Amino acid sequence: MFSDAVSRYAAIGAKGITVWRSAIEGLGPTAAGRLARDQGLAIVSLCRGGFFVSGSEEGRRKAIDDNRRCIEEAATLGAPLVVLVCGADPGVSLPEARAQIEESISALVPDAAASGVRLAIEPLHPMYAGDRSAVNTLAQARAICSRVDSPWVGIAVDVYHTWWDERLEGELAACGAEGRLFSFHISDWLTPTRDLLEDRGIMGEGCIPIREIRGWAERAGFRGFIEVEIFSRRLWEMDQDTYLERIAAAFLSHA
Amino acid sequence: MFSDAVSRYAAIGAKGITVWRSAIEGLGPTAAGRLARDQGLAIVSLCRGGFFVSGSEEGRRKAIDDNRRCIEEAATLGAPLVVLVCGADPGVSLPEARAQIEESISALVPDAAASGVRLAIEPLHPMYAGDRSAVNTLAQARAICSRVDSPWVGIAVDVYHTWWDERLEGELAACGAEGRLFSFHISDWLTPTRDLLEDRGIMGEGCIPIREIRGWAERAGFRGFIEVEIFSRRLWEMDQDTYLERIAAAFLSHA
Repeated sequence: MFSDAVSRYAAIGAKGITVWRSAIEGLGPTAAGRLARDQGLAIVSLCRGGFFVSGSEEGRRKAIDDNRRCIEEAATLGAPLVVLVCGADPGVSLPEARAQIEESISALVPDAAASGVRLAIEPLHPMYAGDRSAVNTLAQARAICSRVDSPWVGIAVDVYHTWWDERLEGELAACGAEGRLFSFHISDWLTPTRDLLEDRGIMGEGCIPIREIRGWAERAGFRGFIEVEIFSRRLWEMDQDTYLERIAAAFLSHA
Repeated sequence: MFSDAVSRYAAIGAKGITVWRSAIEGLGPTAAGRLARDQGLAIVSLCRGGFFVSGSEEGRRKAIDDNRRCIEEAATLGAPLVVLVCGADPGVSLPEARAQIEESISALVPDAAASGVRLAIEPLHPMYAGDRSAVNTLAQARAICSRVDSPWVGIAVDVYHTWWDERLEGELAACGAEGRLFSFHISDWLTPTRDLLEDRGIMGEGCIPIREIRGWAERAGFRGFIEVEIFSRRLWEMDQDTYLERIAAAFLSHA
């Protein structure tokens, strides 16, 4: 339950929360925002918009409509930002998917501006290029931002998706210089990784140089929240209070 | 059995084979080479050398020794090329791993030249950056080739590892212009992919534009074999003659 989550997050000393849309479906954004703020938590972002890519015009239109609702929901919740997982479709070529994404984000800029909600393109790991995001590197996300050219559109950087990229340090610097570094997510890459979606590690369990990458982001001017985002069937099965304590400890020692 | 494999490959019309070292361990390279040639198969390459990255000096030295044996084995087999899966280690940082790889390949150039065996760096998908290869893009492989600067060192391009990269077409062109395009591997990317290692698809089952990428490689001057390389527990479980027939049909319609 959302109320349970916010009180436990506050109890371990978390200062903010990114809210997943599905987590507040019954509750609604007004009540959810109040619950979080009552616990002293800042609302960092609403997760997630995007999934713009479709083989049909109708699919694309529906996606844009849903993103409009998402932006409104963020405004009501009091979230200054929506994270965009941009989408991909095995039946749509990557160049076409990338064009659809850029066009859809451009179409949403007036909504973002009117609601005062920023949009953060999250480049996803190349292993998701077939079905979740055709935006797979920070360089690509930056190029989209330059062309869309709005102060309401920037980038969410997740070390899990980007750590392998030899251009990462330079891209982060450029991203910061352009004022596009909106969010920063952390978790760790396990070897072996047993599932493409739900086998992330707690910081320190894997091989990502999280503190180094965080340093690059902060040298590039990033001053926002360092957000922990771990999808893991293994960790979801353990006692969730213990899990939260492990996250808090790992945050201090590895992030 | 290797003898079984070569006769079945020949029977479906294959003109060449890349030999895995483990597949000829008992048989030895001389006999294996004869068996393949007796079936009219060209030997395309020996797979695989590499795994240069280690946290210890001894580990690195052992890797180079093993690669020397691999090059000799290729020469005995009659393989003009060794495919290098360059290695990665969760305990070694990516910049350090990349430096180790480059240094090791440079150290092997005299052996390659003496044996008349070319070395092909295979960039592996970023999902293997933690444990199999710290070389994850064609751009990185090309940069290593430029610095090592030997006609014996080039690149093996596998569409499975590289299809997501928006720079792929341009990188293939550059790679060809530099005379580095040594090998070309195909298979398909499934959505969802259920295993990081052994869930590839037959050409046409997934979302990789194989024929388009092959066109880019051939426009860049590539005239070598188009090699099918599919790791799949699902497909390995089916009747293997049927599997071969499906591969042959898919090759004609999708590659």
